[in-house]
Amino acid sequence: MKPTFDAKPWPRNAWYVACTPDELTDKPFARKICGEPMVFYRGADGRVSALEDFCPHRGAPLSLGFVRGGDLVCGYHGLAVGCTGRAASMPGQRVDNFPAIRAFPVLERYGFIWVWPGDPERADPAELHPLPWAESDQWAYGGGLFHIACDYRLMIDNLMDLTHETYVHASSIGQKEIDEAPVATRVEAGEVITSRMMDKVEAPPFWRMALRGAGLPDDQLVDRWQICRFSLPSHVMIEVGVALEGQGGYEADASVKASSIVVDFITPETETSHWYFWGMARQFAVDDAAITDSIRQGQAQIFGEDLAMLEQQQRNLLRCPDRRLLKLNIDAGGVRSRLMIERAIAQENVAPAPLQAAAG
Amino acid sequence: MKPTFDAKPWPRNAWYVACTPDELTDKPFARKICGEPMVFYRGADGRVSALEDFCPHRGAPLSLGFVRGGDLVCGYHGLAVGCTGRAASMPGQRVDNFPAIRAFPVLERYGFIWVWPGDPERADPAELHPLPWAESDQWAYGGGLFHIACDYRLMIDNLMDLTHETYVHASSIGQKEIDEAPVATRVEAGEVITSRMMDKVEAPPFWRMALRGAGLPDDQLVDRWQICRFSLPSHVMIEVGVALEGQGGYEADASVKASSIVVDFITPETETSHWYFWGMARQFAVDDAAITDSIRQGQAQIFGEDLAMLEQQQRNLLRCPDRRLLKLNIDAGGVRSRLMIERAIAQENVAPAPLQAAAG
Amino acid sequence: MKPTFDAKPWPRNAWYVACTPDELTDKPFARKICGEPMVFYRGADGRVSALEDFCPHRGAPLSLGFVRGGDLVCGYHGLAVGCTGRAASMPGQRVDNFPAIRAFPVLERYGFIWVWPGDPERADPAELHPLPWAESDQWAYGGGLFHIACDYRLMIDNLMDLTHETYVHASSIGQKEIDEAPVATRVEAGEVITSRMMDKVEAPPFWRMALRGAGLPDDQLVDRWQICRFSLPSHVMIEVGVALEGQGGYEADASVKASSIVVDFITPETETSHWYFWGMARQFAVDDAAITDSIRQGQAQIFGEDLAMLEQQQRNLLRCPDRRLLKLNIDAGGVRSRLMIERAIAQENVAPAPLQAAAG
Repeated sequence: MKPTFDAKPWPRNAWYVACTPDELTDKPFARKICGEPMVFYRGADGRVSALEDFCPHRGAPLSLGFVRGGDLVCGYHGLAVGCTGRAASMPGQRVDNFPAIRAFPVLERYGFIWVWPGDPERADPAELHPLPWAESDQWAYGGGLFHIACDYRLMIDNLMDLTHETYVHASSIGQKEIDEAPVATRVEAGEVITSRMMDKVEAPPFWRMALRGAGLPDDQLVDRWQICRFSLPSHVMIEVGVALEGQGGYEADASVKASSIVVDFITPETETSHWYFWGMARQFAVDDAAITDSIRQGQAQIFGEDLAMLEQQQRNLLRCPDRRLLKLNIDAGGVRSRLMIERAIAQENVAPAPLQAAAG
Repeated sequence: MKPTFDAKPWPRNAWYVACTPDELTDKPFARKICGEPMVFYRGADGRVSALEDFCPHRGAPLSLGFVRGGDLVCGYHGLAVGCTGRAASMPGQRVDNFPAIRAFPVLERYGFIWVWPGDPERADPAELHPLPWAESDQWAYGGGLFHIACDYRLMIDNLMDLTHETYVHASSIGQKEIDEAPVATRVEAGEVITSRMMDKVEAPPFWRMALRGAGLPDDQLVDRWQICRFSLPSHVMIEVGVALEGQGGYEADASVKASSIVVDFITPETETSHWYFWGMARQFAVDDAAITDSIRQGQAQIFGEDLAMLEQQQRNLLRCPDRRLLKLNIDAGGVRSRLMIERAIAQENVAPAPLQAAAG
Repeated sequence: MKPTFDAKPWPRNAWYVACTPDELTDKPFARKICGEPMVFYRGADGRVSALEDFCPHRGAPLSLGFVRGGDLVCGYHGLAVGCTGRAASMPGQRVDNFPAIRAFPVLERYGFIWVWPGDPERADPAELHPLPWAESDQWAYGGGLFHIACDYRLMIDNLMDLTHETYVHASSIGQKEIDEAPVATRVEAGEVITSRMMDKVEAPPFWRMALRGAGLPDDQLVDRWQICRFSLPSHVMIEVGVALEGQGGYEADASVKASSIVVDFITPETETSHWYFWGMARQFAVDDAAITDSIRQGQAQIFGEDLAMLEQQQRNLLRCPDRRLLKLNIDAGGVRSRLMIERAIAQENVAPAPLQAAAG
């Protein structure tokens, strides 16, 4: 069954990372997510709400207004909107019949604010991607945010094929053995998993730093692994690490390895731009804030290299829209992830939300 | 009768403020008005002319040229155009058969240069909006110019509903009593008039300054008024003021009030931008240049706040072109002003200029 | 016969200046020429190659990569492309069946890198415009490059009608006698030639400098000439000079004149922008590097004035696409040059390359 409307290239009924708590001050906060201009704010009870960033009175952005008693007040003529999207009050006006604006389901958990851009009736907190490390004191986390001018799926391709590290990140985490080691890609329990094992290699600079952070020698051969896990709508968790050579690699005891999870939440903004929430969760030196900073700086530099490449790739692809690209074995992770996305979109379009829900 | 061409959203046969005399130096001056790129210059006799900014020879902008003996000389190959738009001379060429460019009727009066973008045959100096205060030594005037990236009609809406002062200008002229006082809107003698009377209120900062300027106490309750008058094509004159409480308000004797006219000439540039000539004419302390400066600075700050809101409102509306806005009682001034504009445009399209005039 | 595809406004089968050798370092170099994004690099043997700037794997720009053993290696995942456009290698991949990208014929001669954007089968080094002065030690050359946001044909018009010097370059090379002297235009041996002779005139500042550089007095009347020669695809060579008055002008003995060739290679980038390689070849003071610098600075200033005028002219023309321009006698050089260009384009379209060549 063919959709009768313009399908956007992302699933709508899913939890996306919208922002981090530190981005939300006492002022309303504007961000476009999945093509929807949204405004986020904390109400009187501290809960975050997300509304369409459009005052139903004269179309001013509500994000230019202010929060008063849990309502978002338009900064133009004072119309106040409640967290359901219905007008709450306006000086000298009866607002009962004012049209409501859209309200988007929001969750705050795991150190992130999550938003559901699609049908509110279907929003289910149980569908939130579990992040056990985020609620464990055995783990430390640090991260950042980039705005990247490319289709969010190019970022998924990028992360699901780490061959590029050899070239894009030659001076930090790249090494020749990466593009020489074969990858294996499989789909399992709703995840696309691409693994690469590199035994008896020299640790590149980033990992030497991590080994030192974990109290291990940084000048020995290591067994290195990369296990990239894609899940809907656009999350990529990458288990990465090195173990001292011959101790079991990925399966080695925690005392002889430095490992972590590269955390990637990739939130579409428009068809050709996205918000990239990147970070690293680690199980070593969890109380050492200096290492958190050091890793954050390292990642910022590395993902900055990706940003430059991806934005140029996007411009090249826009220039040549009819050009077909190759799909090699190293691309299988991205290809299967895109397939999973396409199926999710198709399913949303086949079974549209019932009318009363759509009006919500 | 349906117009057979793309109607622009402004009347063409009307006097618009094009610029102020201080903008016109000895060099030609380029400004797009009502979608027409124009070049303004003073001829030998000091009179201002306005021509299409397009050399009929190779299409260079005439505004890059210079003035010589009352003609505008193209800075590319020296074609000289007279104030009628006809080619006057060109080195080594006979110019008799050169196509003329458009010349726009111009008036200089009341401290402004006015231009008539439409049919020159219909341009009638008698239709110029009378500004008696501009020619009286009982009044002082100061003003400025902003370029604003929004439809000029959003500015008319803004000025015909001063409810926004409570929100947009909270720190200067806004006060709670504004949005609590009812407005009355009427159409009278070609004007849309929206009035609001606020009795026994505290004077906000701007008016306390004005009271001091008028030699009156600034710490007493006042009766405050706002009478917004829209007239075609896009002028808004706002009588504003405060009188010491209980003295008659708007009708009070001049000795117990501070009043002035907020002067707004709103000249369309494109469908989504305009030139905003703002200012204030006042009857108090007319010889005090320091007060003129102070008021100008105050207005610049206030209208800068409007600018920020209006440009964001425009962007939001462009994002949602099919969205219908509310029309509340407070919006009646803007709604009726737009209706007057629409009727003027429709009338221009029903009764096109006779052919010989169109060729002028 | 009407072309069945969108014809670009330039001949494709011709040698265009792509860059100068100093622009080519050890990194690949990106430049769009005739609408084609190209990447230039020197192989192991020092020869310059030009490829389509598009990796056949995932569409990244090859110009972000690096050169290795004569191949261009993509900086994303390491696909290496040879100078023929065929994939040479990729880690862990068999590349035999990878689609080739386009390779553009390149020549390096006369101090320039030349590229042939059209059918490689037709690329003939013999068609390169001969520049004997570039290989003679009797001549000196200095030049520069501007990116100009206008149709390359507006630059040809500009150079084939030097009347504009009186106006655009009033303070350097312009003088009243230019636009008073008649021009003669003829087509001869594949060139459009526009000449203007000005006898007994004062030398303008630029030429007084040149006279001093040639060891001649700079305060006497001179006979001045300008002979503009257009040839396909878009080269304009202008013989310019002054001779002491009454010595034969253009034909005078070298000892009493200062003359040179203004060299203009005008390479289309897009329909509304081009690369302008400008310079001057001179026969006087050929070993004086200070004079080369001084002339280069003078030309940079003069062509900067042209740039400003041409970009504004282009904007004006885009604003008025249906407007017809005048064709005067002074415009004959440009008009005939454009006609020669149109015929070359038409001929390319009538006789398309045979299929096997097009596939190259």
